[in-house]
Amino acid sequence: MDIIDILNKKRKGKKLTKEEILFFIDGITKGSVADYQASAMLMAICIQGMTDEETADLTHFMTYSGDVLDLSEIEGIKVDKHSTGGVADTTTLVLAPICAALGLNVIKMSGRGLGHTGGTIDKLESIPGYNVSLTKEEAIKQVKKHGIALFGQTSDLAPADKILYALRDVTGTVESIPLIASSIMSKKFAAGSDAIVLDIKVGSGAFMKNTKDAEKLAHIMIESGKRLGKKVTAVLTNMDAPLGDYIGNSLEVMESTKILKGEGKGSDLYEVSLTLATHMLLNGKIYQTPEEARENIVRVIEDGRAFSKFKELVRIQGGDERAIDDTSLLPLSKKVTTFKAEKSGYIYSYDNLAIGRASCETGAGRKTKEDIVDPGAGIVMKKRVGDKVEMGETIALIYTEDRDRIRNCLEIMEEAVDIRDTKPEKKPLIYGIYDGEMFI
Amino acid sequence: MDIIDILNKKRKGKKLTKEEILFFIDGITKGSVADYQASAMLMAICIQGMTDEETADLTHFMTYSGDVLDLSEIEGIKVDKHSTGGVADTTTLVLAPICAALGLNVIKMSGRGLGHTGGTIDKLESIPGYNVSLTKEEAIKQVKKHGIALFGQTSDLAPADKILYALRDVTGTVESIPLIASSIMSKKFAAGSDAIVLDIKVGSGAFMKNTKDAEKLAHIMIESGKRLGKKVTAVLTNMDAPLGDYIGNSLEVMESTKILKGEGKGSDLYEVSLTLATHMLLNGKIYQTPEEARENIVRVIEDGRAFSKFKELVRIQGGDERAIDDTSLLPLSKKVTTFKAEKSGYIYSYDNLAIGRASCETGAGRKTKEDIVDPGAGIVMKKRVGDKVEMGETIALIYTEDRDRIRNCLEIMEEAVDIRDTKPEKKPLIYGIYDGEMFI
Repeated sequence: MDIIDILNKKRKGKKLTKEEILFFIDGITKGSVADYQASAMLMAICIQGMTDEETADLTHFMTYSGDVLDLSEIEGIKVDKHSTGGVADTTTLVLAPICAALGLNVIKMSGRGLGHTGGTIDKLESIPGYNVSLTKEEAIKQVKKHGIALFGQTSDLAPADKILYALRDVTGTVESIPLIASSIMSKKFAAGSDAIVLDIKVGSGAFMKNTKDAEKLAHIMIESGKRLGKKVTAVLTNMDAPLGDYIGNSLEVMESTKILKGEGKGSDLYEVSLTLATHMLLNGKIYQTPEEARENIVRVIEDGRAFSKFKELVRIQGGDERAIDDTSLLPLSKKVTTFKAEKSGYIYSYDNLAIGRASCETGAGRKTKEDIVDPGAGIVMKKRVGDKVEMGETIALIYTEDRDRIRNCLEIMEEAVDIRDTKPEKKPLIYGIYDGEMFI
Repeated sequence: MDIIDILNKKRKGKKLTKEEILFFIDGITKGSVADYQASAMLMAICIQGMTDEETADLTHFMTYSGDVLDLSEIEGIKVDKHSTGGVADTTTLVLAPICAALGLNVIKMSGRGLGHTGGTIDKLESIPGYNVSLTKEEAIKQVKKHGIALFGQTSDLAPADKILYALRDVTGTVESIPLIASSIMSKKFAAGSDAIVLDIKVGSGAFMKNTKDAEKLAHIMIESGKRLGKKVTAVLTNMDAPLGDYIGNSLEVMESTKILKGEGKGSDLYEVSLTLATHMLLNGKIYQTPEEARENIVRVIEDGRAFSKFKELVRIQGGDERAIDDTSLLPLSKKVTTFKAEKSGYIYSYDNLAIGRASCETGAGRKTKEDIVDPGAGIVMKKRVGDKVEMGETIALIYTEDRDRIRNCLEIMEEAVDIRDTKPEKKPLIYGIYDGEMFI
């Protein structure tokens, strides 16, 4: 078998065999396929596409390109959640304690933020003392005892994905549904998941700009999952505006504790978190119906068990649980700048990608992988899309002490906000839920 | 400007601006665009194509990616010839002395062979003493005095082409008409040509398998040439079988001297060489009509001036001209193996690519760039397509002393020859001549 023949085949739009896909993935992992050959293949896949079968094969061989965690010691179905990346999207910190409190063993590896999207690991690290670096053995031991572990990705999982992911970023080959799908799933399956609940963000702050592309991604992931014997549920959610009001690391921990304390009922972050938790519990066979799951989720928030579970998680991973009871103990910029409305009217829309970039600009995120995040930086939105504002009224608070950062952030925010005389039509928060067939 | 934006644009099939193409070519030349980004672009161009305007811009910036030879010291229009690569295709050695003898200044850089096709420089090096390494200054001085110079390519011409050419070879992106066209033309324009006569080979031994693709290539090169103020004439010629009967280095020098002595009249090599020479002389404005050019070409062969010019070339570049008078002085394998017909019938067809590979296998060619060619190795074809053969009759003579090479060569030859009871239909030798409009 020859990589050049395989490249020629995909260039011409032909379907690759299982063996050819294995040869490619094996080659990039071992280094016998050069990066310039891998990037040519990525471009060919982007343009010519892949069938469901090819995508499933790609996912499978990427999953097995390195270690695959054996979580058989942990009882029950291992359900993971993945978000395609949004702004003020801190559902993991909400749903993980909820699910654990309801008896689902949650062993979840998360990543760091890059660009306009945040990362769970960065958020957890804003909690003084929280240790994100568990070994596989430590994590399994912890889950067996406490039912929950949230920690950083170990580096030897899905190494082929690591190589392709880095190349896609620099070769204009990010926007390919088979490549997005295989990247997400291979990481999750290598981390030992039996099932995934996928939060596909749709809108101005997301990779998927419209529901059609998001549905395609949902379809291909569900189909690939089926072929690989894994249950995938996809929830399509609105990302035209920040999901929560708090964007940043400490700030998102604060907002998630509010939700867990029952103080954020009915908010978008609350609704999306509960929907995702519902499907995690269903896939984990803890409950049989969405109604039953939802009822129990609401109860576990109201009776304080979800919040306790979060404190327990923080404590057992070395963090200071007092900072969860009293979030003023979390690091936060002392300087707060108000971003005010230039005119009166309605918040007609946000350029959510720009808001993500503005938050990144405060120091809450990374422009390059080497950047260090500031746990106390970020943005708090005081207005949501559809809200009325008066000229001079505060739209957002900017948390950073650096003057240049403040200036840059304000500049981006100005462009991100569209105030008009008319109230915008309300868009759905959840566009649909798919797991083979649509049921909402 | 950002290479990732440019990659995304071409991935989506959009037309690149002049500035974007310059940014890409400049980037690969300076190293600010990485090879994995270049190969992704090559794949995108292969699949999405390029307009005539983009191809002309690409050619232009590739031409100027390094030095461009200034040949203004040499009188007249500088006309170059390029073949897309064939088997037993030694037209350069025939037409260069003919054109020089008729007053066209011929300054021609050539390359080495790779794979199934030979290279003029390898052939010239089989002449004892012939020096292929002229500096630009030496070549210009020689042409001013003798009207001819045939030498090797200097390394600083069209460096962007060098980079892209090497990448295309290993990324399955060879078969792209805009990439083929820009590669050929940028090298020729950087070498100072005002006009090009292009020999586009069509058939089993060529990159272009059918006349449709060849016509596309002709069209795009003529159009790009026009946009860049250069005259391009394309001759589409048959490459279903070896053009001459001699394949190898010394062997092709032998056959070209025969033609120059007037001993090969009417043969395919003679006809194609004369057609190409005709259009070189027309583009060089030495003659006004094809008939006038042809008449003079025939005369210059018959009166011995073409052959004298070849001897002069060999002598002034340090070669032993006695080996041109008496080609038995050229190196040649002492061992000759006959390849015989397995059955009686007609030579129905040759797999010409295989014959090229068989010749390469004797040591006459290179499988990799690092291989050293054997000047005395090669194949002499004793039968042409359409010839009758008896079982056991010699089809070809194989020149190599190495047993393994003989065995491999025989094996390939067996697969290359198709003998049938019926005589094949004769295909045209020259499919068409284009230079803006078709006139044959």
